Amino acid sequence: MDWLDHIKWDRDGLVPVIAQEAATGDVLMFAWMNREALARTAALKQAVYFSRSRQKLWHKGEESGHFQQVHEIRVDCDQDVVLLKITQLGHEPGIACHTGRHSCFFERLEGDHWQAVDPVLKDPASIYKA
Amino acid sequence: MDWLDHIKWDRDGLVPVIAQEAATGDVLMFAWMNREALARTAALKQAVYFSRSRQKLWHKGEESGHFQQVHEIRVDCDQDVVLLKITQLGHEPGIACHTGRHSCFFERLEGDHWQAVDPVLKDPASIYKA
Repeated sequence: MDWLDHIKWDRDGLVPVIAQEAATGDVLMFAWMNREALARTAALKQAVYFSRSRQKLWHKGEESGHFQQVHEIRVDCDQDVVLLKITQLGHEPGIACHTGRHSCFFERLEGDHWQAVDPVLKDPASIYKA
Repeated sequence: MDWLDHIKWDRDGLVPVIAQEAATGDVLMFAWMNREALARTAALKQAVYFSRSRQKLWHKGEESGHFQQVHEIRVDCDQDVVLLKITQLGHEPGIACHTGRHSCFFERLEGDHWQAVDPVLKDPASIYKA
């Protein structure tokens, strides 16, 4: 059996993907892959997602230089979620978020409001050059 | 504004949720919440998910005793994914997976096949009593 057939793709042909930094355990981002994206990720050993907004493959880092080196690909007990163990390349510490932060999960619930609690490491304007 | 209105609920009124063990950084599971589930999670400080298969609220641990104590609730930069920092209760080390394993992400891609690489810590038959 093709290993890609093990995945239970959703009604849109996608699977949710969690990217976790291998060295720190930090959860950096969450995105989606279709079959081709996961195949390319495994072959390239760099994260290739499927952009739902743009409806096309998205090689993470293609614009920012912040590629994700993939060390491990895991799937959960229902075969419908993928976990990547990665190194976030292109900056030290790694910047996974388009806001210039380490992780996309930078807002924390504080009582009855959300608070941004992690610093911007690099101005997004200097990450994404026109 | 109600903090729950900050979340971009999907077309089914759900948001994907990643549960990460606070002490180890391990990603233990992935599930979904609706508005009520997230409200209850914040109030109770224990994870309450929405079961898509059963179409009802699911207080994690209600059958297994493996409750999840919630230390932090985070949201990502698009406000459409939630990250919980938890302690997995009821067993040492924590068992989040219905297979009796620590984490649901126990299958790893090895070349062209998936390999279960983490041990069963407790027989599921003794976790879920009839």
